[in-house]
Formats: sequence, C-alpha cells, structure tokens
Amino acid sequence: MKNYQIETILSTNRKPKPDSAHLEFGRTFTDHMFIMDYTEGTGWHDPRIIPYQPISLDPSSMVFHYGQTVFEGLKAYLSEDGKVFLFRPDRNFNRLNHSNARLCIPQIDEELALEALKQLILVDRDWIPQAEGTSLYIRPFIISTEPHLGVAPSENYQFIIIMSPVGSYYKEGIHPVKIAVEQQYVRAVAGGTGEAKTGGNYSSSLKAQEVAEKVGYSQVLWLDGRENKYVEEVGSMNIFFKINGQVVTPALNGSILAGITRDSIIQLLKHWNVPVVERRISIDEIYQAYKDGVLEEAFGTGTAAVISPIGELLWKYEKLVVNSGEIGKLTQELYDTLTGIQNGTKPDPFGWRIEVNPENTAKDMHSGSLIY
Amino acid sequence: MKNYQIETILSTNRKPKPDSAHLEFGRTFTDHMFIMDYTEGTGWHDPRIIPYQPISLDPSSMVFHYGQTVFEGLKAYLSEDGKVFLFRPDRNFNRLNHSNARLCIPQIDEELALEALKQLILVDRDWIPQAEGTSLYIRPFIISTEPHLGVAPSENYQFIIIMSPVGSYYKEGIHPVKIAVEQQYVRAVAGGTGEAKTGGNYSSSLKAQEVAEKVGYSQVLWLDGRENKYVEEVGSMNIFFKINGQVVTPALNGSILAGITRDSIIQLLKHWNVPVVERRISIDEIYQAYKDGVLEEAFGTGTAAVISPIGELLWKYEKLVVNSGEIGKLTQELYDTLTGIQNGTKPDPFGWRIEVNPENTAKDMHSGSLIY
Repeated sequence: MKNYQIETILSTNRKPKPDSAHLEFGRTFTDHMFIMDYTEGTGWHDPRIIPYQPISLDPSSMVFHYGQTVFEGLKAYLSEDGKVFLFRPDRNFNRLNHSNARLCIPQIDEELALEALKQLILVDRDWIPQAEGTSLYIRPFIISTEPHLGVAPSENYQFIIIMSPVGSYYKEGIHPVKIAVEQQYVRAVAGGTGEAKTGGNYSSSLKAQEVAEKVGYSQVLWLDGRENKYVEEVGSMNIFFKINGQVVTPALNGSILAGITRDSIIQLLKHWNVPVVERRISIDEIYQAYKDGVLEEAFGTGTAAVISPIGELLWKYEKLVVNSGEIGKLTQELYDTLTGIQNGTKPDPFGWRIEVNPENTAKDMHSGSLIY
Repeated sequence: MKNYQIETILSTNRKPKPDSAHLEFGRTFTDHMFIMDYTEGTGWHDPRIIPYQPISLDPSSMVFHYGQTVFEGLKAYLSEDGKVFLFRPDRNFNRLNHSNARLCIPQIDEELALEALKQLILVDRDWIPQAEGTSLYIRPFIISTEPHLGVAPSENYQFIIIMSPVGSYYKEGIHPVKIAVEQQYVRAVAGGTGEAKTGGNYSSSLKAQEVAEKVGYSQVLWLDGRENKYVEEVGSMNIFFKINGQVVTPALNGSILAGITRDSIIQLLKHWNVPVVERRISIDEIYQAYKDGVLEEAFGTGTAAVISPIGELLWKYEKLVVNSGEIGKLTQELYDTLTGIQNGTKPDPFGWRIEVNPENTAKDMHSGSLIY
C-alpha cells in the first residue's frame, strides 16, 4: 500500500450523536469530512481530513450553473463484535471514475480514495450505529468549482466525502412499496447520462415522483426514452422481477445505472442456482405475466434501501398487485442474506466485506501528518 | 408598481473594473449581487442587494448532489447617450418559472425579480461597458440548499443574480463557426428536461463538445433522442437555416430550449416579410438541401453569442460548407438589427428594449431600506 500523505485536522468541538433508534436518513453528519482539490495543470492535491464544515464557493462556481457533479453512496457497518465493515467499496470508486469520464471530470486515484475513506471512518468510528438496520451512510461526491460562466468543463473541482448515521431509507422500514409506471416523463435515454451518477439524472426525476406521490405511489418505474416501452429502473433503484420461477432484470444498456447491489443480487442468485437473466424487458411482458398469474415477486435494489419489495405496480389505470402486496419469499431471503453479509452476521463467500481497522489503514497517521 | 422591500447593503471595498477592450466572458463580476431565500412554509423572503461574496453551504446541500438548479442569461447595454437598456427581461423571468415548474422549484414573483434586477443594475451601473460588442451579462439562478441526502425536492433555495461585464462570447468575435452533427451522444429527449434551463442539460453536453473540439469543431448540432434524425439545437443555441429563400427552425417540441433570441429573430423576419417556418427538420433534409445547392445560410441564436453564423457542418464524414464559409447576408442583417435594437442604436418597433433609470426603479431606496 502506498503511504498517501493525508493530513488530518481533528475537530475540537464534537457534536452530540443522535439516538440510534430514531435516525433519519441523511440529516445528521459526523464530526469530520474528507476533502481534496483539483487544479488544472496540477491535478488532485492536498487530500485532507478536516472538521465537518460549510463549503464556501464563489456564486459563479460552475456547479451552481452547469451541473457538472458526480456522486456515490455506500455504507459502513458495525458488527456485533465491534468490527467495522465496508461493502465492495472499490466498486463505488471505480464507478465514480466511470461517471467522471461521462461528465468530463478528471479521474481520481481510486486507491487513495479508499484509503482516505478508511482513515475518515476510523476518525469518526464512534458515529457508526450498531442497532438492527442501521449503518453509516457514506457520500463521496465531486463538484466543479471554477468561478466562470461559460459552457465548458471546469478547471477546478473538489472531491469530498461526508458521512451520516442512518436507519432505514424508508421511514416504514422494509415493507412493500407501491410504484407507478411512468408514461409522461423520461429519466434517461441512450446517448445521455443515465449510466452516470450525476445530479441531472436525479433532478429530472423529481417531477414524475411528485405526480406519483400525489396519487399514493412512492416512486415511479421508468421506461426507456426512445420507445417508452422497455423497463429501465425504479426511482433511484434497479428493478428485478420473479416470473414463473425465473428472475429477470433489465440488461445494462447505457441508460441504466450499473448498481452494485444489483450486481451483488445477480451473483447471489447464481450462487444459489436460482435462474437469473439480464435482458430487455417490455412493460407489456410484465403486464402479461401478471395477467397469467406468473408475476411472483418484484423488488428494487440500491445502496440506500438495499432491497425494496414492490407490492403494487400502477400501469395505465390498472393496479397490478404483486404477491398479494406482501414481501416475497425470495425477496426476503435476498434481503436477509445481503444485509447479513454487509453487517457481519452471515458468512461472505464472495469476499465483498472489507474490514476497516488501524492495522490496514491510516499508515501516515503515524508518520507525522496528524495534526491536533 | 408594488413597493418591494429590497434591502441594500453597499460594498465598501470596490473592485477595479476591467479594461473594456479585453473582456473575457463570465470571469469578472461586479461589486454587488442580489440574493433571496426560500424556506418551505414561509416562501421567498429577505430579498437583498449585498456586496458580491462567496456562498457558504453545508456539504450535504442538495445542489451538490441532486442537481436541482435553474438559471437564466440576459444582458444590459449602455447606449452612446448614457442610457441603460435591458432586452425583454420579463421573458427571462417568465422562462425561469417554467424551468422551476419542471424542476419542482417554487415559483418566483417575476415582477419582484425584475425590480430587484433593475435596482442591482443601478447600484453597479458603472460596471456596464460601452465599447462596441460589449454588455453586462446578467445571470439569475436558483440553487437547492437544504442540507439533506435523499432524492426529493429541496425545502430551501437561494435565488441569486450576479453580473459580469462581457465582450463577445467567442474570443474571435462574430465569425462563422464549424459545427459537428452529433451521432453518439444525446442532449435531451421528449419527456426529459430539454426545455428547461437546468444544469443537467449542460453537464450532459460537455462530452460531445469535447470530442468535437478535438477534431476542430467548436460545438455540436444535437439530433433528437428518440430517432437521432431530427435537428434540435446547436451547442447551447437554437439553430436556423435559410433554404431556397425560406428560413426554417426546429419547432418547439419540449426538448428544445424556447430561446428568447430565437423568438426575436422569428418576429424580426416576419416583420421584414421574409418567409420563416417553425417545423420538424431532419438532418437528411439539410443534407439534401446542401447537395441541391439551396442551403444558403445557417446560424445559431442565443443570449450569450446573440447570433453565430455557421460556416461548416460536419455530417458523418462529409463537410457541408455553408455560403463558402462566410457569414450570410441575412445573418449579418439580423445580427446588426438585433444588436442595434439591444444597444439603442436602432429603432425598436417591438417594444423589446426596457430602459433602466432611477425614475422607474428602486422606489424603496428612498424609503429607508438603503443601508450604507
């Protein structure tokens, strides 16, 4: 491992920690953050862990105008015996670089990013909640900071990691959600940015979600932007269906996010010898499966919610109730197994779980760069 | 006119003004800015003019993650006899509200926004350059500021106006540009956000522009996202073609920005009895017109560049040279007339030019809210 020089300035003003029984998603943040700057010609420089604090930017900073942003989401878990785990974090930093490429943001050093995250987690270790279903949500993100009006890639960026102790993404916990199939609005199209984790994909999704919520649906199922016919993803998650014993999920086509939970579910199903296929799926096919009584289960996957069972799909004016509106047997098994691997209560045959401890982290905290 | 209570705090530290012969677009900003806050439940509040200064935001502020932003661009001109003019500013604030609706951002009071802009311009009046081709570029924008990770509309926003003295958008001035017809990337699709002025539309466009620049083209001509067949807009401008004596431009279809310069050009052409049609235009039709020798002129329109003549289109592997690569006669007439209306050197039969002076502005600067 390289000995990255990550300066650490510890906070002298520690915040009270929230009650782990009443954690709201993404509203409370830990005592520290990681930050690193990019300057055209110099590259990424000055990686540092500092007290959590506001960002001060010129009002002409490009992030406020031209949306050149990318982000990631992952979680750290505290096991019953006090170990800290990350789940496939290398995949997140790798995907961040894929998003960077699409958005004309310079590549980051993935190894440095992971090392920085580990050091940050150790500094704020006391913030990781231990109660059932809780975790430390981690948000790495990059923003364009050049003070310049004009449509061009920014010459300055900041890469930042912040962390938030969280409970369930949905206040109601793991319960089946109702999803409306979107017919008017489009999230992404081939040739667009659908595959990247960038702000524009999320801002464009709000309107459809707002309309769906007004009629009692928590999220929307997006169809493709060319033909409004093929299933893409649901809200901010990938989607899976169990039809007649076989699990199907839309193939990655450039406009769908390559979810890390999605990939883990596919590997888990293959490990269990449950038939699973990635392919193009039309909404008509889902409707027909429902009519034929073979639409057995449906669920969304994503880091924030892990797995969200889908109890009902609204398609045009018809309500397709899946598995009597209850969580399916396979969906429950996948949820239990994946969260068990993540929090250390179940074996990890895939090597997905990475322990974070002082022995494999923070080399240079002992090399003189730690500043109190 | 309502007597809006806009507080004004003047800067005590005035910056040096740039040489008007060497203005770079969007890099220098005036001494003051306008800012107004939105709080869910309260609405927009505390409109104020303050010294130009950095914005301080929590790193979890939604603008950094979910791209919920909108903006506008317009210009103020200083006439030879010292009058200050705006060009159709009501249209900009009206369009801002259309963008707000698509992005789930609360509507602003358009009349208040215009009044605030006028007051801001009067405060920074000395910053408006007077040299040929120069103007004061105005950037109203709204950012989502709620400190919260989670995909939902923000509960807090800031509406800000900043201003920058500018010369030509292109360093080379008004000269024909070379445009590559984009075949791989897509800017927007029906059902998406193409009609809104939001960051995501611009960040998604950078990659195609970067690729085009590497082979010598300054911008790209976007085709539609469904069929990759119909002309939409060029770079960040609307596009017009003169074919066999008739001017054609793509009809507004939901994925094209409803440009104010575009609308002004159409009205000007009608006023001159030049045939002008808004309709769907395929790239094949443009190619055929070129082959038939009837593609007479082509140009882009937008606030920043006003009119950009197009001297060459790259379509697949063929270079379509328009009007021998020179600016067309009609393009030049449109440019001269529109810029003349804007800067006060030509008559304004349309009532587009709005004078900004203390008699029709800043009522409450005399009502006690002005703070030095």
